[in-house]
Amino acid sequence: MKTSVTVLGLGAMGTALARAFLAAGHPTTVWNRTPGRSPELDGLGAVRAATLTDAIAANGLVIVCLLDYASVHEAIDDAGLTEKVLVNLTNGTPAQARSTADWAERLGAQYIDGGIMAVPAMIGGPAASVLYSGSSTAFEQHQHGLAVLGRATYLGADPGLAPLHDIALLSAMYGLFGGALQAYALIGSEQLSPTAFTTDLLLPWLTAMLTSLPRMANDLEYGAQPGAAGSNLAMQATGFANLIQAAEDQAVSPEILLPIQELLKRAVAAGAGDEDLAALLPHLTR
Amino acid sequence: MKTSVTVLGLGAMGTALARAFLAAGHPTTVWNRTPGRSPELDGLGAVRAATLTDAIAANGLVIVCLLDYASVHEAIDDAGLTEKVLVNLTNGTPAQARSTADWAERLGAQYIDGGIMAVPAMIGGPAASVLYSGSSTAFEQHQHGLAVLGRATYLGADPGLAPLHDIALLSAMYGLFGGALQAYALIGSEQLSPTAFTTDLLLPWLTAMLTSLPRMANDLEYGAQPGAAGSNLAMQATGFANLIQAAEDQAVSPEILLPIQELLKRAVAAGAGDEDLAALLPHLTR
Repeated sequence: MKTSVTVLGLGAMGTALARAFLAAGHPTTVWNRTPGRSPELDGLGAVRAATLTDAIAANGLVIVCLLDYASVHEAIDDAGLTEKVLVNLTNGTPAQARSTADWAERLGAQYIDGGIMAVPAMIGGPAASVLYSGSSTAFEQHQHGLAVLGRATYLGADPGLAPLHDIALLSAMYGLFGGALQAYALIGSEQLSPTAFTTDLLLPWLTAMLTSLPRMANDLEYGAQPGAAGSNLAMQATGFANLIQAAEDQAVSPEILLPIQELLKRAVAAGAGDEDLAALLPHLTR
Repeated sequence: MKTSVTVLGLGAMGTALARAFLAAGHPTTVWNRTPGRSPELDGLGAVRAATLTDAIAANGLVIVCLLDYASVHEAIDDAGLTEKVLVNLTNGTPAQARSTADWAERLGAQYIDGGIMAVPAMIGGPAASVLYSGSSTAFEQHQHGLAVLGRATYLGADPGLAPLHDIALLSAMYGLFGGALQAYALIGSEQLSPTAFTTDLLLPWLTAMLTSLPRMANDLEYGAQPGAAGSNLAMQATGFANLIQAAEDQAVSPEILLPIQELLKRAVAAGAGDEDLAALLPHLTR
């Protein structure tokens, strides 16, 4: 018999979570503030709880995925969490996860926070990954069930670690996408094909550039070799002016690039001109 | 007999270009404004020209790689360019390349502009790539010689195309690196290991996210399927607030992410809330 599970919240993501549990044969109770959401779950065998209290009472493992942490607190309040394992997959910050863990533990629950590295359509598929942190006992108990949603990675007892890593990865993704948009805007300014540019140049280039990250991380962890910079920050700051000027010339806003230029200038002004990109990091930290 | 070549400018990149030609058996004449730069080239068989005029007179193929386009114009002036093929690998903008092509052609030269997608240490190796645009006749004549420097890609007769693509790729790279720095700053705020984070999470994540780019490019070229957004801009704008708040909470500057948040807000305010990232592009174009 597979672990039975409650899913609170049937937005796009909550619905995908419930579908994945049902598809894997986990008896699944669902609840949503607005009743009747995602009627397709009924045909898949979901049990609809009439009230939140019933939903939580139904199972020892309770997954919650709502709009934000305020909704979690407002919905759950203190509705019978004693001895439950609460897995909160709602998007939030490390600080929110830590205070929600304190609250859940005061109510007698074991708390796990999670960050879903996937869009709803990917849940239950091979590309989905979910980061977890919080109660290690609860994670060990339920990791096989949770693995139904996607590859489950446990990051440690501090419940803030999953959202911290989630947000770090999303920040990196938006940097990637922001840079790609800037490239597409430049290519588009000459009516060139974005698909040809992507296949022929952008993907091979960015794939090659990804291989710089282990070196950057190594520099951050162990310190950079003096003079080892392939292209030092002073040279990069000089060359960067062309990226801004070319955008202006092509009627493309340079706004996405400006803070990176400012960061380069700040680091060079502070004496890091002969260092590599890792030397920018102290200038991002307050 | 391999084509003989002149290299003007012996900074780190010019020196690497000369080394690659010499290593491949091309008779190579070099010139630098400050004499005696890069003495190691003498042992490799480089011929040093006493004057710029001598350097240009020595060979039909003249490669120039100086600090910027102003230096190119200042150095070369009109020193005997008639019937030469001038390949300008100096960093610059599309507008600078176009006006330099006009100038070189008025002096009777065939002009090729190039963008080097490599740091000096990569020149002549398998990972180096150089983009070219300008005279197709000259490119066809010299592409085998130029391939000594790195994979040679010809982008078209408009001499601005090589720097345009160069700058588009560098812009994308800085987006990637900026996002990665933001991630490292967040990870560092909890004294976690950047190398473990890179190997275990960041590289697999960004590698997976690269696969979104062909879809984004496809949306740009052919229009997006309505409602096909995995996570629409309105949802992304809401979630983005967590990226900013978490950075603030962890004493990390959110400056790199702020323009992307502004762009999301602008697009949502303009009615693109149910669209995907490609819908941000018109809001970057003036």
